[in-house]
Amino acid sequence: MIKVSILGTGNVATHLFKAFSSSEEIEIIQVVGRNTKALLAFGHNTNTTSNFTDLKVSDIYIIALSDNSIKTVSEQLTKNNALIVHTSGSTPMAELSKHKRHGVFYPLQTFSKTTEVDFKKVPICLEAKKKEDMALLKKLANLVSNYSYEIDTEQRKSLHLSAVFVNNFTNHLYQMGSDLCKEHNVPFKILSPLIQETARKIETLSPFDAQTGPARRGDSKTITNHLEQLKNPEFKAIYKLLSKSIQTTYGKKL
Amino acid sequence: MIKVSILGTGNVATHLFKAFSSSEEIEIIQVVGRNTKALLAFGHNTNTTSNFTDLKVSDIYIIALSDNSIKTVSEQLTKNNALIVHTSGSTPMAELSKHKRHGVFYPLQTFSKTTEVDFKKVPICLEAKKKEDMALLKKLANLVSNYSYEIDTEQRKSLHLSAVFVNNFTNHLYQMGSDLCKEHNVPFKILSPLIQETARKIETLSPFDAQTGPARRGDSKTITNHLEQLKNPEFKAIYKLLSKSIQTTYGKKL
Repeated sequence: MIKVSILGTGNVATHLFKAFSSSEEIEIIQVVGRNTKALLAFGHNTNTTSNFTDLKVSDIYIIALSDNSIKTVSEQLTKNNALIVHTSGSTPMAELSKHKRHGVFYPLQTFSKTTEVDFKKVPICLEAKKKEDMALLKKLANLVSNYSYEIDTEQRKSLHLSAVFVNNFTNHLYQMGSDLCKEHNVPFKILSPLIQETARKIETLSPFDAQTGPARRGDSKTITNHLEQLKNPEFKAIYKLLSKSIQTTYGKKL
Repeated sequence: MIKVSILGTGNVATHLFKAFSSSEEIEIIQVVGRNTKALLAFGHNTNTTSNFTDLKVSDIYIIALSDNSIKTVSEQLTKNNALIVHTSGSTPMAELSKHKRHGVFYPLQTFSKTTEVDFKKVPICLEAKKKEDMALLKKLANLVSNYSYEIDTEQRKSLHLSAVFVNNFTNHLYQMGSDLCKEHNVPFKILSPLIQETARKIETLSPFDAQTGPARRGDSKTITNHLEQLKNPEFKAIYKLLSKSIQTTYGKKL
């Protein structure tokens, strides 16, 4: 049985809590958060506290707080013999170095309160200062997910940056597609199968091989037509820059 | 029984051929293409020709050729009483106006030769000069897909443009993510669940509500860190422009 306490009450904390609760090998000792109202959402059977210096004994303390709070909160913790980890993609493991035993437990997925996530499919990126703590983190990760990876701070930083491209920026392209549809009274849902297929394709093809479209073909006539269609100068600039970047990738000049 | 001839041997022609072949209500009369080698791929039981002026009698002739060839090829056709349609997202229906009966049969999906597509889920965008031809196209579309829409030339143009954003540009963001992973020896497949979830999310949430990340939060510290990490000036420019555009969307200033 692994005894775990969660520090935080946000999206990541909530999804971790659900995932841990579903395993019989994990005991959630405590949920800790400043926001007493948010703590109520963890249910009557959960021990909660808003006092970060009054923590019960656990094997692992998981800091699932905003990047800015990790260092400060971790330095308040007096549990010097326990394993302290954070869940952040962009924060170095070394920010926890006040504690002898420290590491990272970073679930690489987009979490929102309203959407259910199949945690078994969430990749968990692990880092630990000590070898034996990596073994413990792996054990914990494998109880809730089918995918765990040893990832050091530099690698995790590049994953976090890549995630901005494939998640935040991709979603913004969906947003722009949706705006363009709205302009001409076309239901955005017509594009949904294309969006799903675009994502599905890279399960079997590399993005390099999966690319199609006017920029890939060097079809300057269509590109010119599209730029004429675009009224919003920001959309126009994004269209130009991404088309140019695709052409750089495939060595085509217009 | 609807009698159909396909003009073209590329990706769209191939996927239409497969979809039509699977319906007992559709008879494929002929496949027409300049490339005799490509015609062989349609099998021994298919009547094929490379002579565009020697066509057998059909109810509908489907021009699945590159945008640049549609007008020229359609003007060579002497079948003035049949329905002539093209399959292009960006070509006006009027380019077929030499023919009394003309229209558009545009399957909005990304097709590649190696990837199987479930045609039942492909949205078909239909346009027809005459009302009774719209009925015929709807009948044909409903035999192969669960989703058909009446979409005029202007709407189709905006769908085609949106498709470049949600498909070509999105795939290019995957490509950039993959490059960033490669730089730090991280397997790109770690990002695959995130990519799938990003696409899946907009089945239930609008892209506006689904957005997360540093630009959405106005987290300038993370944005500065990311820009420092990016070595490639093109990637840097894309990161800046898309972050700025997200901030415009949510009215945040950095």
